[in-house]
Amino acid sequence: MKKVINNPGDVVEEMLEGIMRAHHGSFQKIDGVNGIVKKELKDKVAVVTGGGSGHEPLFFGVVGDGLADGVAIGNVFAAPTPNTVQEVAKTVDSGKGVLFIYGNYAGDVLNFDMAAELLEFEDVQTTTVKVTDDVVSAPLERKEDRRGIAGDIFVIKVAGAAAEKGLSLEEVTAVSQKANEYTYSIGVALSPGTIPDSGEPTFTLADDEIELGMGIHGEPGMERTKLMPADELTNQLMEKLLDESQLTSGDEVSVLINGLGSTTLMELFIVNRKVAQILDEKGIGIHDIDVNNYCTTQEMGGFSISLLKLDDELKAYYDAPANAPYYKK
Amino acid sequence: MKKVINNPGDVVEEMLEGIMRAHHGSFQKIDGVNGIVKKELKDKVAVVTGGGSGHEPLFFGVVGDGLADGVAIGNVFAAPTPNTVQEVAKTVDSGKGVLFIYGNYAGDVLNFDMAAELLEFEDVQTTTVKVTDDVVSAPLERKEDRRGIAGDIFVIKVAGAAAEKGLSLEEVTAVSQKANEYTYSIGVALSPGTIPDSGEPTFTLADDEIELGMGIHGEPGMERTKLMPADELTNQLMEKLLDESQLTSGDEVSVLINGLGSTTLMELFIVNRKVAQILDEKGIGIHDIDVNNYCTTQEMGGFSISLLKLDDELKAYYDAPANAPYYKK
Repeated sequence: MKKVINNPGDVVEEMLEGIMRAHHGSFQKIDGVNGIVKKELKDKVAVVTGGGSGHEPLFFGVVGDGLADGVAIGNVFAAPTPNTVQEVAKTVDSGKGVLFIYGNYAGDVLNFDMAAELLEFEDVQTTTVKVTDDVVSAPLERKEDRRGIAGDIFVIKVAGAAAEKGLSLEEVTAVSQKANEYTYSIGVALSPGTIPDSGEPTFTLADDEIELGMGIHGEPGMERTKLMPADELTNQLMEKLLDESQLTSGDEVSVLINGLGSTTLMELFIVNRKVAQILDEKGIGIHDIDVNNYCTTQEMGGFSISLLKLDDELKAYYDAPANAPYYKK
Repeated sequence: MKKVINNPGDVVEEMLEGIMRAHHGSFQKIDGVNGIVKKELKDKVAVVTGGGSGHEPLFFGVVGDGLADGVAIGNVFAAPTPNTVQEVAKTVDSGKGVLFIYGNYAGDVLNFDMAAELLEFEDVQTTTVKVTDDVVSAPLERKEDRRGIAGDIFVIKVAGAAAEKGLSLEEVTAVSQKANEYTYSIGVALSPGTIPDSGEPTFTLADDEIELGMGIHGEPGMERTKLMPADELTNQLMEKLLDESQLTSGDEVSVLINGLGSTTLMELFIVNRKVAQILDEKGIGIHDIDVNNYCTTQEMGGFSISLLKLDDELKAYYDAPANAPYYKK
């Protein structure tokens, strides 16, 4: 795979330089670590996200008003260091505490937790919501072991809006936890991304094969099968998703169709057409549909479907204004 | 290339169904043709864009406030029919006339021109600005023969803002024509997209080859060469772009780094870093930088750099609010 890069070891640093050059009006870079925070911070609970690079526009793309206040950026597919998380949290804390929101991966958990411990000594109060939306990654009774994928967006959206409204750290954490509990995602992989450093693919799949439920780093899914028509594929994914989420007639959801990199918007809209048909048939109300590339894995082919079950509280936060480089409402 | 589609002949129709399901709150579909217009039309000059499908989010993605009022959608890489253009124009016309803005390709010119003739008989006044930003596609003295690529975005942005301000058709056309004259783009191709109908690639390039200046449908560029580091590649592209645009110290520009499909935001930001360094060195002011995927060719690999030279008039229109599904300011 051809990549437009210089020294593979410099991709994250050079990307950050490019990001800061484009967004210096709204972002500040923290000296010495790969952390970015909003230029104008408010006197409110702060929301900090982060994770490995390589999934752009997540996570820096959701730093903005009504969303995240700061982001801790790791190397490609690697957790940010505890020190990075710590510096970002210290910078955004107004004294009202910091909520960490990130996808549930071992490295991220380890480093965010270590940062939280260190921050205790500096009188920065923190809480954590680990996003666990990927229904294939563990059984329902172990929801807390599931991985986080594109559902990050829903949880960060709700958290950012709740923080903006002036809720306490405890309250923002509780509603963000609810948003995570109400978020269900499933993905499918068509083709791998490439690790910039090695030039190696993240996994291999035959020319006519796809993997239902595969994780965004190539983690095993639920079934490797032949490529099938979009409607049949969407049916299979939605069957699993509706079974796991136990959504029923009268429920209302927001939908996210998230492209993983090289799958086109044309394909994502064809999938969206079928997702909406299925939800309509089931009598599940559709509050909003977002078709976008938020959580990518380099040029990986495939997509995920995420559903956020809404109640009045979540709907109000979902609909609240938001303004970040790659998420506006 | 694996595609998430059903019957290849249905991709455009099914995509449109998916688009309308997601955006029925702000879009209306015109019966019988592949045309979409804003739900709430205003008493002002209307801006209509369009072109072949396969380049999403262009062109439907810029239908919104302060941008285009309607879009005429063709089949994959094929111009919209005259009838489609005609119906879209009739729907959006408030009596103040319609400005057509589209990339300068023979099929689009033929069909938009035919629609304009037919609309004369229906008392709908039209003008046309063909976007000709691709500096590689014809020499400077034949600027009017150049093709349109991602620079469409700049011209539509300026036109939409000018129309929103209440200018006359003549005035909106004049400032949009100026935006086109002041827009300079250059692209590079790394890998082809796939035509959904045939499954065939749009062109072929060896594993270590790129083509400087190649058009978005695989039209010949200026040089086929070996893959090189991002900085060296950006240097070569910018040298050509600055030579063609004759930008000099003291000038001010908006920058668009446009991904063609599978090139990652990480790579685009690495390119952006170098573009900004070069402009800084030349003393050319950077008013704004936008790094995004607006004008794609399915999962084609590569990108383009566009520069819009600003004066006070263009800057005001560039900065004006805009709100469409894939372009917000």
